[in-house]
Parts: sequence; structure tokens; C-alpha cells
Amino acid sequence: MWTIDADALESIAIGAGILGTGGGGNPYLGKLSARRLLRSGKRVEVVSLDEVDDDWRIVTVGGMGAPTITIEKISRGTETYEAMRALESYIGRKVDAVIPAEIGGANSIEPMIVAAQAGIPVIDADGMGRAFPTMPMITYFIYGLSCYPCAVCDEKGNKIVYTEGVDAHWLERLSRTAAVQMGGHAGAAVAYMTGADAKRTAIRDTLSWAKRVGDSVRDARFRREDPLDAVLESTGGTVLFCGKIAGVDRRTVDGWARGSVTIEGTDDYAGSTMDVAFQNENLVAWVDGSVVTTVPDLICIVNRDDGEPVTTEMLRYGYRIFVVGIPCSPMLRTPEALEVVGPPAFGYDLPFVPLEVVR
Amino acid sequence: MWTIDADALESIAIGAGILGTGGGGNPYLGKLSARRLLRSGKRVEVVSLDEVDDDWRIVTVGGMGAPTITIEKISRGTETYEAMRALESYIGRKVDAVIPAEIGGANSIEPMIVAAQAGIPVIDADGMGRAFPTMPMITYFIYGLSCYPCAVCDEKGNKIVYTEGVDAHWLERLSRTAAVQMGGHAGAAVAYMTGADAKRTAIRDTLSWAKRVGDSVRDARFRREDPLDAVLESTGGTVLFCGKIAGVDRRTVDGWARGSVTIEGTDDYAGSTMDVAFQNENLVAWVDGSVVTTVPDLICIVNRDDGEPVTTEMLRYGYRIFVVGIPCSPMLRTPEALEVVGPPAFGYDLPFVPLEVVR
Repeated sequence: MWTIDADALESIAIGAGILGTGGGGNPYLGKLSARRLLRSGKRVEVVSLDEVDDDWRIVTVGGMGAPTITIEKISRGTETYEAMRALESYIGRKVDAVIPAEIGGANSIEPMIVAAQAGIPVIDADGMGRAFPTMPMITYFIYGLSCYPCAVCDEKGNKIVYTEGVDAHWLERLSRTAAVQMGGHAGAAVAYMTGADAKRTAIRDTLSWAKRVGDSVRDARFRREDPLDAVLESTGGTVLFCGKIAGVDRRTVDGWARGSVTIEGTDDYAGSTMDVAFQNENLVAWVDGSVVTTVPDLICIVNRDDGEPVTTEMLRYGYRIFVVGIPCSPMLRTPEALEVVGPPAFGYDLPFVPLEVVR
Repeated sequence: MWTIDADALESIAIGAGILGTGGGGNPYLGKLSARRLLRSGKRVEVVSLDEVDDDWRIVTVGGMGAPTITIEKISRGTETYEAMRALESYIGRKVDAVIPAEIGGANSIEPMIVAAQAGIPVIDADGMGRAFPTMPMITYFIYGLSCYPCAVCDEKGNKIVYTEGVDAHWLERLSRTAAVQMGGHAGAAVAYMTGADAKRTAIRDTLSWAKRVGDSVRDARFRREDPLDAVLESTGGTVLFCGKIAGVDRRTVDGWARGSVTIEGTDDYAGSTMDVAFQNENLVAWVDGSVVTTVPDLICIVNRDDGEPVTTEMLRYGYRIFVVGIPCSPMLRTPEALEVVGPPAFGYDLPFVPLEVVR
């Protein structure tokens, strides 16, 4: 067990922003909310899966919507907490801990905020080992847990409980349209599970991984070293491209930020062009028309200057960035996972070729 | 208390179709479902508000969506019943009776079906004394009852409970988009109330009114008399127009059938043209450009030949019809009701002038 302080928060915001592959919501705003909470004297305790009792009751909490919305529509700060309370009230018992759905920007920090508000720990694990845009892509559901019941709340006081349903795709469809009506962003609580369930279906130690990545970036800044090396070393990734953002095509549609970014190469990549397609998260990267990385492997765009993650909603012309590819968790590379998170699941008629094999 | 048999059902389908002012869902399909249920030996008992105990627990049930959908997407027949069960399960107790939300086509018959399925009575009253397209227009909510919780279910097994929220407008917005995602039509249970609540906020004796209107039309058919006279006499309405449908502009948008119908005058109305605008239900009628009737008064389009209601989704070129105006319930003419159901609530910058005053 470890406790999150302002320093750890700073690192997690950076690390989760990078590992979020563009999505998960703006990490800066998430950090500000959490910092305010820490200043008010609240504590956030992180427990590893090994410290979780098999019969704990756990729920995953986070924001849902388009990251482009979150930088315009400031949240009330209690939506996700209220969603958890609505779920608890529907189930008829309190939960013992929360677990993130994804490692990515605000959605790594949101569970900490809810944990602090409720006075329960957050578990050092998640359901993606990165971020993804839809509910069925969470390992809890890929590996057989039910996504019902699910609660969705907004800042206005609307509360919805999806009590039963066909599957996670239907839950995604119905809850996403609700989030759009709620103003493009809402708090959600889902994946009510036991400690034993979490041990079987979660991806381990990802909060501490995010912290390590952030620590290493901050250390490089302090030493005035290249943040690229720090990111490569702490993530086990490989550099895919370096360059300058030459164009962004981004629309907020159906509750997601969809589009692509074009990057003109510099340094070793001068003369080449990278294109990255995204749906909240970066999905496929091409260099001069050839695929170099696809989901579920991580495609992370990072500011060359200071190692800050450049999330989907922050992409803009002129940024000097580097792009790092990181092999995803083995739990996302099984046949049952690839059916849900592989390139065809996002509409790309491409095979998944592991990053290590392409290079 | 009276029991609905196949004969009463036949009359209610006609009467509720006429009083539904174009909406409420296709009465023919509703009738077929109810008839099948009656044939299977189920009974539907109707109790008047005077027979309702003050501490009964009551819920209103019906279909929501665009009537144009209901004639294409055949319902499973248990959606609305499942919605009631989901609501009961959320509340933690069974209800003693159901009450219609509106008198209108399928939505007058749907509560009978649910009542028969659940073995409870249906109350001879409703929340509109006609049909309207949105949830806030129900007298239960206009006169202060809460619209939360509300359950919405589809034929696929998706179940949603709206547990808390801002108001009936927000409930309408969120549940309507869910119904659209569910395929354009869903079953709903809402307005959990006591018997005392129902006595205060419901419009009385509207099921038996619908039956009386239907009886009178069927009687006219039998006697080969003009169904127009039968409708006028049994509804207390006045004839607004007679003619032939010359054009229909109808789109299914946002979960409603919206548009207008143009009618060329015949008989005493030869040379004149009537236009009627609708959103599921008929909203405003103009003759040669002058307003003759507006919501909340009833604008009912009826087949000249046999007295069958011509609901919004059945409007088509060439039908010979008459249009009857009927004064709405006094409960819809109070200032608080007119704010929600008057012409401006539907986007028309028109005052509400009671039908009796216009003529």
C-alpha cells in the first residue's frame, strides 16, 4: 500500500497521459481536481491486487464522453462519485475499493478522486493497460464479468442505472447516447466485481507503472536530459517517429473525438510523414503510407520539449513531438481480446502485428 | 368495475384512436395483442377512480417512440410489462394497479395488456385525456407528482432505470434518446403514485369515454348511418372540416413522427384547404391559413367511410376524412397546464383560444 501525495499525482498525470495513447481525458484538469482534494486533507491510498481480499466488492469508476468536451465543460467534480453511490444504492451495499477502467489521463485520476471522496482505497490495476474508447474493450468484460448494473450521472443531478441488458456493446450504445445528451461528458460506475474477479481480469500494477513513467520524465526535465530517452526506458517502448504536427482533422461526433493527425518528420525522420488515426485514443500509425503500429499496441504522442503527453484534444499545428510505440499487455493480445480491441474492431481491415515483429 | 371483453376492446380501439388525436401508437396492432391475450383466457378488469384505495400503489405504463416505427417494428409484447417489473424491482414492492398515461391508440390498450399479464386492474382514467408526444405533458407531473423513478425496456432485454433527475423534461430527453437507440420504440413505466395521488392528478373515466365513442361508431356502422354524427354526439365535438387528403409531409426524427397533412375540402368545405401540423399528435389546424384549433384541444382525423381513426402514421393521399375538434379536459386548460401543453410549448407563437370560443 502506498499513499498518493501531490508529488506522486504530478508523476501519475504525466505517465497516465502518455500511456493513455491520446485518450482518457485531459490529465491536467484531472490533476487539478485531485490536487485540490489532497490540499483539503483527503488521502488516497493505493493497494496492489495482492493486498485485495477475494471477497471485497469493487467497482470501476471514471468519466465517459469525448475528451474534447472535458476541456470546455468543466465538471462539477462529484459526477463520478454520485455514479458510484447510485450503483451502491441499487445493489444495496457499499463497495470496498475502486479500480480504474483505464490508464489514461483524467480516467486514471478520477478513481483516486472518488476513492478519496468515499474514504476507500484505489487498486493499482486497470482494465486496459492503456485507454480505449468503448466499454466492451475493458478486460473485465472481455474476460467474462458482467457489465450490469452500470450507473451514469451528470453534473445536473440526472442519474441512470442500466440494470440489465444484452451485452457491453448495448450498454456502450445506450450509455454513450445518454452521456451525449448530458452534455458530452458524464460520470460512470460499472463492473461491480469481487476481489477474486479483479485478480483474474485486471491488468496489474498499472498505476505504479504510470507513476514510474512520470517520475522518469520529471527526472529528465530536472537533469535537462532528453525526455524521449526517459520515456523509452521507463515504458519499454520504441521510437516510431519524431516530427512536427502539420495538420489535425478532429471532429466531436457521437460522443467521441474522431480524426487524424499528420506529422512531418524531423531529425532521422526528415522527409517522411506519419499519419495517426484516432477515436479518442490513437488507433493506427502509418509512416509514408505503411502501417507501423496498430491497436491494441500503444501509440503515444509526447511533447519533445518537456515530455508532456499530447492528448487527442490538445493536438495542434506546430507542436514538436515524438511518437513512441509500446507493446500492450499480453491480456490484450489473446484471440478473445483481439476480437474486441484489434484493428478490425475499429473498422480497419488490418491484421494485428505486434510492435516487436513490425520493427 | 367492469371487465374488458373482445367487444369492449374493439370499441376502445376505435374510440381511443379517435381521442388520441393522431398519436398514441397504432390502435390496430394494440388491439391484436390484447385480443390474443383475451383469447388465452386472461381477464382485464377496469376500476373507476372511486373504487381505488387511497393507499394503493399505482404506476403508469405505455410505449414510447414514434408511431411510424410501431407499424414496422413489431413489439415482443412484453417490453412494457418488463418495464413495470423493473420499476417494481427498483422500488422494492409490487404495484396494485396500472393507469394509462394517455388515451390514444395503442397506449390505451398497452396498460390493459400489462394489467392482464400482471393480474392487476387498470384504472379508468389517464394523464392527458387525449395523447401528447412528451412526458412532461402528463397531468401527473403537471400537478406535482415526481416522474422518478422511471423504467424503460426494449424487446432485446435492455433495461434502464432513471432513478433521479432534474425534471420531466430531462427524463423525456434521456429516455427518448434511449428509445431511439433501442430501435425507435420501447416500453416505459413511470409515475409511481398512490391512489390518492391518482384521484388528485388523473383525468377521470377516459377509458369508458373511449369505449362509448367506439360503441357509437360501431353502432352507426351497423345502422349504416354517418359515422360523423356518431363521433360528434359521443365526443361533444364539433366538425372542423371534411375533405380528401391531398398531401402528407412526414418524417421520423428524434423519436417522433413530425410533419403536416393538407386536406382539400369537399361537401360544405369545397374550395377550402385545411392544414394540420403534428408531432405524433395533431397540434394546430388551419383553414385557408386561419387557425381553427390548437393544442391542448383535440384535433381528430377520422375516416369518413367507416369512422375509423386515421392516426399520424396512417395518413395518406386520397383518404376521405372528416376532422373533429373536441374541447380538452379542464385540467389541461389551467395556467400551469397551458404552460406545458399550449401552442408555445410546441414552438407555435399562438395563444390558446378554446375551441368553443373560436367557433
